[in-house]
Amino acid sequence: MDDNKTLMEAFKQAPYPLGGHGKRNIQILKEAFREIDGSLPSDMYGKGEIIEDFQARMADVLGKEAAVFFPSGTMAQQIALRIWCDANGLPRVAYHPLCHLEIHEEDGLKKLHRIEPVLLADKHRLITLEDVMRLQEDISCLLLELPQREIGGQLPAYEELEAISAWCRDKGIKLHLDGARLFEILPYYRKSAAEICRLFDSVYISFYKGIGGIAGAILAGDEPFVQEAKVWKRRHGGDLISLYPYIVSSDYYFQQRIDKMDPYYRDAKQLAGLFNQCNGVATLPEVPVSNMFHVHFQLPKETVEPLLIGVYESTGIGFTSYLRDNDAAGCFFELSLGDAYADVPEDRMKLALRMLSDKLKESAMEKSTTS
Amino acid sequence: MDDNKTLMEAFKQAPYPLGGHGKRNIQILKEAFREIDGSLPSDMYGKGEIIEDFQARMADVLGKEAAVFFPSGTMAQQIALRIWCDANGLPRVAYHPLCHLEIHEEDGLKKLHRIEPVLLADKHRLITLEDVMRLQEDISCLLLELPQREIGGQLPAYEELEAISAWCRDKGIKLHLDGARLFEILPYYRKSAAEICRLFDSVYISFYKGIGGIAGAILAGDEPFVQEAKVWKRRHGGDLISLYPYIVSSDYYFQQRIDKMDPYYRDAKQLAGLFNQCNGVATLPEVPVSNMFHVHFQLPKETVEPLLIGVYESTGIGFTSYLRDNDAAGCFFELSLGDAYADVPEDRMKLALRMLSDKLKESAMEKSTTS
Repeated sequence: MDDNKTLMEAFKQAPYPLGGHGKRNIQILKEAFREIDGSLPSDMYGKGEIIEDFQARMADVLGKEAAVFFPSGTMAQQIALRIWCDANGLPRVAYHPLCHLEIHEEDGLKKLHRIEPVLLADKHRLITLEDVMRLQEDISCLLLELPQREIGGQLPAYEELEAISAWCRDKGIKLHLDGARLFEILPYYRKSAAEICRLFDSVYISFYKGIGGIAGAILAGDEPFVQEAKVWKRRHGGDLISLYPYIVSSDYYFQQRIDKMDPYYRDAKQLAGLFNQCNGVATLPEVPVSNMFHVHFQLPKETVEPLLIGVYESTGIGFTSYLRDNDAAGCFFELSLGDAYADVPEDRMKLALRMLSDKLKESAMEKSTTS
Repeated sequence: MDDNKTLMEAFKQAPYPLGGHGKRNIQILKEAFREIDGSLPSDMYGKGEIIEDFQARMADVLGKEAAVFFPSGTMAQQIALRIWCDANGLPRVAYHPLCHLEIHEEDGLKKLHRIEPVLLADKHRLITLEDVMRLQEDISCLLLELPQREIGGQLPAYEELEAISAWCRDKGIKLHLDGARLFEILPYYRKSAAEICRLFDSVYISFYKGIGGIAGAILAGDEPFVQEAKVWKRRHGGDLISLYPYIVSSDYYFQQRIDKMDPYYRDAKQLAGLFNQCNGVATLPEVPVSNMFHVHFQLPKETVEPLLIGVYESTGIGFTSYLRDNDAAGCFFELSLGDAYADVPEDRMKLALRMLSDKLKESAMEKSTTS
């Protein structure tokens, strides 16, 4: 074992990563375009068959009047919130403390749109109806992320969602869905995308999570909302002369994977079960409600990292390329299951998990002896 | 002749368009990626060889410390102006009344960044040193567009540019270059890109004008400026997980066409000369200073449009897909010469211009008889 090898390097060299759809390389684009006729005209500033047809089909999938394709979800969601705030004349929204807009966007919502967020719930749990009802301040829009990614991809019960939606409608609060992983939760809810989206006034979906495209997003809602979103898209610099590299690949991988969300979900439940049998390991949620979950270790990053590298090198199985500290002096990583899992030899995977468990047990014992 | 055919339809059917690089279709992407190895890793949120290498090479071409790739120029330029305004603590800039930010971006600069623009010069002419010196209000940044696209692509003398640059430096005003068509003007100035950029604090260039890529832009400046631009790029929703579809194609067409700016410029001068021999036609500028110019007709759009359709159908030459009203009760269109011009048979083109000239003369006589 090379002592200087990083977890990232060891992971890249492992032939059997557990999560994802395989390597993110140029082949993703080449495959998506292989069968596309070169004479197909490019979209031009939001016009043209390529973009208009895809938008119409996605509006249909989501059960909304209209949809607009965006280069990124960051842009799509800030714009959705801005439109609802402007409509209501109040630049205030509410979302989870670990919302993408709060932790991954360099405060674009505040710096560009001057919208003030109210943080609901706490960062360890989901937003509940009670949180929403207890809100002290008026808000124009509530954003819900399904599943709540940063806490392992948890979901409220469908009835709770319905109750939050009804309460918001009653109070004149717009409800926006961060549905970056919307398709991934449909097997758990046993609902169609349109059935979920019916509870929301606006919806964003992503094409590079479970769908595995290159990049790109759709924002959907009623016709006036989408018309306004197109104006803001231009203001943000998102109305590129041509977005077809993302549209064609989003469409291709949507068709490839939309019917695989059931197996991804089943795989996630099976794999989480196996992780939970390891010493000092627990998944969040314990039983996944989508294709994703977090794997938490009781031991700290510095201890777990070399153990993982050893397991990857012995078995060829790659769990993760990184570890992050958790709040309990341990560490964790995220897994989202996709096409790659089907290529993982089951015997090797089970061997890898046994080795991991043994090594973790050994380290825990050493630790308790020395402390 | 089909009386219902629009100018756009007739132009699309004409086998020999005078301007551009050929049809904007999916083949543009397929050709750029044909020789690229599929195993090349994608860029990830601004990191990775594909994006970092291209940014470094473009910084070098522009003679700047650093550069960052953007999905669009709209995003890049708003951000440049925001950075300079924030640094100076004054949200005010100056630019030409027909600046891209003023007329094509749905007021993103005002609505997103709350920056107030002062309009310099008037819309029929270039900004001069005198305009800048006469400014009544303090500004943080002056934006110059070279060439000034909306007035046919005009350019100030290099000495005037130098004087404006020196004056701005002396007054602590940052000078930003809208260099969407920077490479197209180098043959006229007989300067390198770096020699022009030396006069500016920040520079934006585009990859789908003379370069003919799919979309994409570079913003360059000193290292702290570019670091800040990367933060704003994330805020705007421009820090896509992967931008390689635009980077690879920008790089490919940059290499294909960077050495063709001389012939494009020569072709533009030749073709403008031919247009100027037509009855009731004048180009702006009379002698082009880049690969672009505007073609103005004395007669109105309604009169010129059917004449053009007739010429396209008789000769196969396509001048333009649209006409816009000008301020003199006539109309005009824009031409930017690229690869397509080399495929135009000279005899047909000259025939087309003769026919156009004859038809325009006839129409002008009819008009004077009936009025």
